[in-house]
Amino acid sequence: MSQSANAPTTTTLPAINSLLFEVKARKGLTFDEIAKALGKGEVWVAAAFYGQAKFTPEELKKVSEVLDIDVGLVRAGLGDHWWPQKGLGPIPPTDPVIYRLYEGVLVYGYAIKAIIHEKLGDGIMSMGDCKINVEKKADPKGDRVLLTFDGKFLPYAKW
Amino acid sequence: MSQSANAPTTTTLPAINSLLFEVKARKGLTFDEIAKALGKGEVWVAAAFYGQAKFTPEELKKVSEVLDIDVGLVRAGLGDHWWPQKGLGPIPPTDPVIYRLYEGVLVYGYAIKAIIHEKLGDGIMSMGDCKINVEKKADPKGDRVLLTFDGKFLPYAKW
Amino acid sequence: MSQSANAPTTTTLPAINSLLFEVKARKGLTFDEIAKALGKGEVWVAAAFYGQAKFTPEELKKVSEVLDIDVGLVRAGLGDHWWPQKGLGPIPPTDPVIYRLYEGVLVYGYAIKAIIHEKLGDGIMSMGDCKINVEKKADPKGDRVLLTFDGKFLPYAKW
Amino acid sequence: MSQSANAPTTTTLPAINSLLFEVKARKGLTFDEIAKALGKGEVWVAAAFYGQAKFTPEELKKVSEVLDIDVGLVRAGLGDHWWPQKGLGPIPPTDPVIYRLYEGVLVYGYAIKAIIHEKLGDGIMSMGDCKINVEKKADPKGDRVLLTFDGKFLPYAKW
Amino acid sequence: MSQSANAPTTTTLPAINSLLFEVKARKGLTFDEIAKALGKGEVWVAAAFYGQAKFTPEELKKVSEVLDIDVGLVRAGLGDHWWPQKGLGPIPPTDPVIYRLYEGVLVYGYAIKAIIHEKLGDGIMSMGDCKINVEKKADPKGDRVLLTFDGKFLPYAKW
Amino acid sequence: MSQSANAPTTTTLPAINSLLFEVKARKGLTFDEIAKALGKGEVWVAAAFYGQAKFTPEELKKVSEVLDIDVGLVRAGLGDHWWPQKGLGPIPPTDPVIYRLYEGVLVYGYAIKAIIHEKLGDGIMSMGDCKINVEKKADPKGDRVLLTFDGKFLPYAKW
Amino acid sequence: MSQSANAPTTTTLPAINSLLFEVKARKGLTFDEIAKALGKGEVWVAAAFYGQAKFTPEELKKVSEVLDIDVGLVRAGLGDHWWPQKGLGPIPPTDPVIYRLYEGVLVYGYAIKAIIHEKLGDGIMSMGDCKINVEKKADPKGDRVLLTFDGKFLPYAKW
Amino acid sequence: MSQSANAPTTTTLPAINSLLFEVKARKGLTFDEIAKALGKGEVWVAAAFYGQAKFTPEELKKVSEVLDIDVGLVRAGLGDHWWPQKGLGPIPPTDPVIYRLYEGVLVYGYAIKAIIHEKLGDGIMSMGDCKINVEKKADPKGDRVLLTFDGKFLPYAKW
Amino acid sequence: MSQSANAPTTTTLPAINSLLFEVKARKGLTFDEIAKALGKGEVWVAAAFYGQAKFTPEELKKVSEVLDIDVGLVRAGLGDHWWPQKGLGPIPPTDPVIYRLYEGVLVYGYAIKAIIHEKLGDGIMSMGDCKINVEKKADPKGDRVLLTFDGKFLPYAKW
Amino acid sequence: MSQSANAPTTTTLPAINSLLFEVKARKGLTFDEIAKALGKGEVWVAAAFYGQAKFTPEELKKVSEVLDIDVGLVRAGLGDHWWPQKGLGPIPPTDPVIYRLYEGVLVYGYAIKAIIHEKLGDGIMSMGDCKINVEKKADPKGDRVLLTFDGKFLPYAKW
Repeated sequence: MSQSANAPTTTTLPAINSLLFEVKARKGLTFDEIAKALGKGEVWVAAAFYGQAKFTPEELKKVSEVLDIDVGLVRAGLGDHWWPQKGLGPIPPTDPVIYRLYEGVLVYGYAIKAIIHEKLGDGIMSMGDCKINVEKKADPKGDRVLLTFDGKFLPYAKW
Repeated sequence: MSQSANAPTTTTLPAINSLLFEVKARKGLTFDEIAKALGKGEVWVAAAFYGQAKFTPEELKKVSEVLDIDVGLVRAGLGDHWWPQKGLGPIPPTDPVIYRLYEGVLVYGYAIKAIIHEKLGDGIMSMGDCKINVEKKADPKGDRVLLTFDGKFLPYAKW
Repeated sequence: MSQSANAPTTTTLPAINSLLFEVKARKGLTFDEIAKALGKGEVWVAAAFYGQAKFTPEELKKVSEVLDIDVGLVRAGLGDHWWPQKGLGPIPPTDPVIYRLYEGVLVYGYAIKAIIHEKLGDGIMSMGDCKINVEKKADPKGDRVLLTFDGKFLPYAKW
Repeated sequence: MSQSANAPTTTTLPAINSLLFEVKARKGLTFDEIAKALGKGEVWVAAAFYGQAKFTPEELKKVSEVLDIDVGLVRAGLGDHWWPQKGLGPIPPTDPVIYRLYEGVLVYGYAIKAIIHEKLGDGIMSMGDCKINVEKKADPKGDRVLLTFDGKFLPYAKW
Repeated sequence: MSQSANAPTTTTLPAINSLLFEVKARKGLTFDEIAKALGKGEVWVAAAFYGQAKFTPEELKKVSEVLDIDVGLVRAGLGDHWWPQKGLGPIPPTDPVIYRLYEGVLVYGYAIKAIIHEKLGDGIMSMGDCKINVEKKADPKGDRVLLTFDGKFLPYAKW
Repeated sequence: MSQSANAPTTTTLPAINSLLFEVKARKGLTFDEIAKALGKGEVWVAAAFYGQAKFTPEELKKVSEVLDIDVGLVRAGLGDHWWPQKGLGPIPPTDPVIYRLYEGVLVYGYAIKAIIHEKLGDGIMSMGDCKINVEKKADPKGDRVLLTFDGKFLPYAKW
Repeated sequence: MSQSANAPTTTTLPAINSLLFEVKARKGLTFDEIAKALGKGEVWVAAAFYGQAKFTPEELKKVSEVLDIDVGLVRAGLGDHWWPQKGLGPIPPTDPVIYRLYEGVLVYGYAIKAIIHEKLGDGIMSMGDCKINVEKKADPKGDRVLLTFDGKFLPYAKW
Repeated sequence: MSQSANAPTTTTLPAINSLLFEVKARKGLTFDEIAKALGKGEVWVAAAFYGQAKFTPEELKKVSEVLDIDVGLVRAGLGDHWWPQKGLGPIPPTDPVIYRLYEGVLVYGYAIKAIIHEKLGDGIMSMGDCKINVEKKADPKGDRVLLTFDGKFLPYAKW
Repeated sequence: MSQSANAPTTTTLPAINSLLFEVKARKGLTFDEIAKALGKGEVWVAAAFYGQAKFTPEELKKVSEVLDIDVGLVRAGLGDHWWPQKGLGPIPPTDPVIYRLYEGVLVYGYAIKAIIHEKLGDGIMSMGDCKINVEKKADPKGDRVLLTFDGKFLPYAKW
Repeated sequence: MSQSANAPTTTTLPAINSLLFEVKARKGLTFDEIAKALGKGEVWVAAAFYGQAKFTPEELKKVSEVLDIDVGLVRAGLGDHWWPQKGLGPIPPTDPVIYRLYEGVLVYGYAIKAIIHEKLGDGIMSMGDCKINVEKKADPKGDRVLLTFDGKFLPYAKW
């Protein structure tokens, strides 16, 4: 029953991804712990759990070990002949955490675009080659979240 | 004629904001230069130019000086009895630079949400008390953009 | 120029309403001051400025006096043969202040509905016969906003 | 069969939340009764039943006791490794009770925004740190609903 | 199998409502016959079958008798701890019968609004306290439908 | 200035229609008075003012006389070589008066459809051959609006 | 398995309609053959299979015979106490065949409207009393499709 | 003033197209008369007036003559270096005439698709190479509209 | 379980198509290998697997052999009495690979249209008679994708 | 007048871009001729005319010469302090030429994605570093359009 506890998100996830979440919850593991076992960043690992990134065969093996699931099962659903279908959830996001990120695009999108152009010229910040990091930052006036996007600048080609 | 050169964005901006952009372009000033004169962050200043943040009377005065516009004109349009109407442009964004930020929400939103909850508990990263920064990061394999959101964590209240 | 300073809201308002805002800003009046002169609630007066409520002939006269505008002009645009066209701005709201109210509907709408039904039965809280109030509430941990809806309960009729 | 009696809402709720509603209905408990047992506000408790707020382990235990459900079952679906996915139902709301709240945003949103700015400056009323209350208010001309939002004021940060 | 014969409508109805339709069809009863047994209007009874209105305990008992269903079953799904979730079907409606009503709003909405204001002042026709009737009206040039809305006028409150 | 006083509706109307409203307001005429002069129903006349119905040459002449406008002007904009473009305003309607009609479709649409089918068979109520009437109905518990649609039944053809 | 072979269309059809398609495919019958057995037009029969038109009891009997299905089964799902819910598939249509028809409305809609008005006056072509025909038309430069709508002209009523 | 009499359609047309309509109305010409002078079909000519088809230089010359407009003016706006931007009006169409065509797609789209496939195989009816005709068809029970699409069948290519 | 591994895409595919993907993944076959066995292009074969193109009976037989599935099963779901329902996935696409193609339409659509018109006149590039090819193109600065559309030019017919 | 001849596209373009189109049309230049003068690809030049790409100062100078416009005027609107706002026109596109490209994404998007992944692995084809070409390809069965996208493959980064 609990596997649909985070719906609507998990109800639209493939069964194998729902299983990963189910086992992770049952074992009481955090993404930080799983990420350390894999030697990867935790946002990336969480993205892969949500089907938004792709594990290599070696990573699939390690995921199976950490969660103690049969590797064949995981490989059958996430292996080399399946590719992630990316993009998740309603737009505009209804969840307040995700909406605030979206509001950042709505309110600061043009400002960020202007500064990128002024500092690096005509081009974009890649979201495909982008390392994302979330840190807790202690602050006497209340903890803060430090969210970092470190993305490759891709100038527009001319031809 | 050139004032509508960035439309559709600027055509939906109030006339006073369009004028700020017009004069900035004519003088060849960057947001970095204006921000230094104001003693503020450049993303914030760009946001204020786009009508997404509010100048204090002192800041309005400095903006007038840097751009060499009559302060009365600026105050009439952006002063204390007018408040920003926030949120700009089509959604989903059609501009590739802004779309990539939006794609970050689409692809990594749930992953970021999960890590925020695991590290700080049930709550959100504020977008109202959030400092945003854009830096160019040199890299031998090609320059990168470093985009940082430093936002206060706001736990959900219970009552 | 400044009359479009709060666009896109004011650009979609009738010219007479834009003028009211223009003069109010030029005179430096708050809604509280105008409301006191009219003997009405300030949220209601603000709503009427935005074309979301209707002044009586006497109220139109007082508004003209407070703002020092020709009463004929105001009556020509807001008098008895014109009726408010209600509903303003994009949905979902892009402005963070208004979005938070909307998020309240999104997150707490079903909870509020359930409690209304449990306490008053099958029916609705009228928005037409509803007094809305906004107060500043001092609090040592930071000021709070007290927003009150006092609306008539209308049971569903059966026939 | 009855568990889907309030669909479409409950059909999109996780199974564990549907079960809570099912048992509550079978036992004939009101949110007021459950809230008293938990020592919380009833709107908040109703929101938690709809998956829009999160119980602590102690609260989960008390909920299990009041509803006489196995605590393990409840914890498996709502415990520490699951986080609420917020935002419920179609937008614009089709249910008249919820639509009236939404109409309040549509008709009075800009007026409320204006008064908040005039009384507290440039910032928002938090919906995350907001206590919501619904009371029946007897009135000789017909009962009224008193709906109160008591939310923290969050000024926009500058940087 | 036949219970989904009117989908998509009935597929989105709670199971108990689908059952009511199923039994009504099997018994060959019209809404007119059921309404007479209940002593209510037939549009209201049809609305209640679609989950858009709420039966009292006595009405539930009579519905059970007319349809010869176990009253406990009906009460479990439609009793006092469940409340109707109102609003049905796609918008704009795709079914021609319902679309014509919608087209009435589209084409005559502003005209009806103008006449209501001119005859009764600033306010609305309630849809919650509104008796709806459908009659066949014989006409030598072809039968006509007489659709009547008899709704309470609710003036806008001022405060 | 006042001609846009009912925007956004009137801003999307052709100039000639806006003029009709302007003059009607200036002369203080109601639709009832204009309709009597024309010998037509007032909802129909209001619809024609909104560009949702078409005057004959004789009616155009009478409208010119009642409003004291040059008939050539009216004929140039509404005459035989121009045809109404029907359908007005945002959907869902944001104005509460019009929304209530729309809510009637949303909540009672399927019920009305069911009764029409049961009473007249498989077919629709025409909205093109439909007489609409709005009456004030005195009632000790508060005035009511009586809104009537008298539309031809059109059976679905088979072939 | 094959019954969902034409999804998403057939997945949203009632089970009885899906069964009709299933049996028709298994028997290798065309709509032309079924229509001839029924003595009706083939577009109309196809529409009825898709739940967009209603068979009479006699037609239901013939359909049962042609497809060799139990007549009781067909009557239970499509008989006199069930009425078609019309309108099928996503809008804008994603299927190229259906999109081309839709593109006809998009590109030639106003032209067709203008000619209808010029030839028949102010009114519409009925889609309820409209015979639709599809023929293959041999052509040396490549076969053509001849699609005909023969619909009753319904003048707008005045009142 | 009259040039916007058919808005919103004509307000979104280029100025040169609005002028064509203006002059056609002033001269009291029908599309049939213009089409005869051009030796083309009247639906096609109407489509070209709406900017949905392209005149050749010779046709532009004839149009100028029939309407008695300076040919240079027409060529400047519709000549060889401008190409039609096709697709007109809101979707779903709000005008009842155009909506009925759209409803034909909604209700009969899948039926038409099925018959096209059964009679001509896997492919589409071209809307680019399609002759459209509108005729008035006298009928004792009321005039009918005969709308014909004669479009090339384009089989799907394989490669 | 793995059959839904690429959802939401595959969950909306007919069961027979999901099976094709399932078996292809289990056998570790690429589209290139299947396409060679069929003597067709690999993009076309992939499209047919997604239900976007139609196999002939001979092709169905070869597909059955390559995948080692019972030919009757494949024919039952994809044979001559079933026709593809085309168009797949959300719009705008959320998957970054597909979004980039869509962005190409958004950013370069008008430019491509202009060049097509200048080089070939008034008409379109057919998507029904269009051969699509995807090649890997080695490049010292990083591999490139060469995506080619070779589509028949269809001039707009006049009549 | 003619400058809006291609609306709605050109009406949403900045004035300077509309001017470029106007002069190009008046001089009878094709994009091929302008592109040759600039030494760039013609699709890219057309994109720049539509404001979807950015000229360098040298290119602006050459554009001014080819079109014989004052270079200061062009630089004022398209120079270094203005950046393109990308994305043009309604979605889904209503123009048939652009819709066919969009239909390619709808029908073949997943097939193209699958082949890209099978041939180059997990990543995307860049639309920012993509050379687009349109050629006329003579063919005895009718001319064809050869549309080529030559885009850099960008593998998804892991971190």
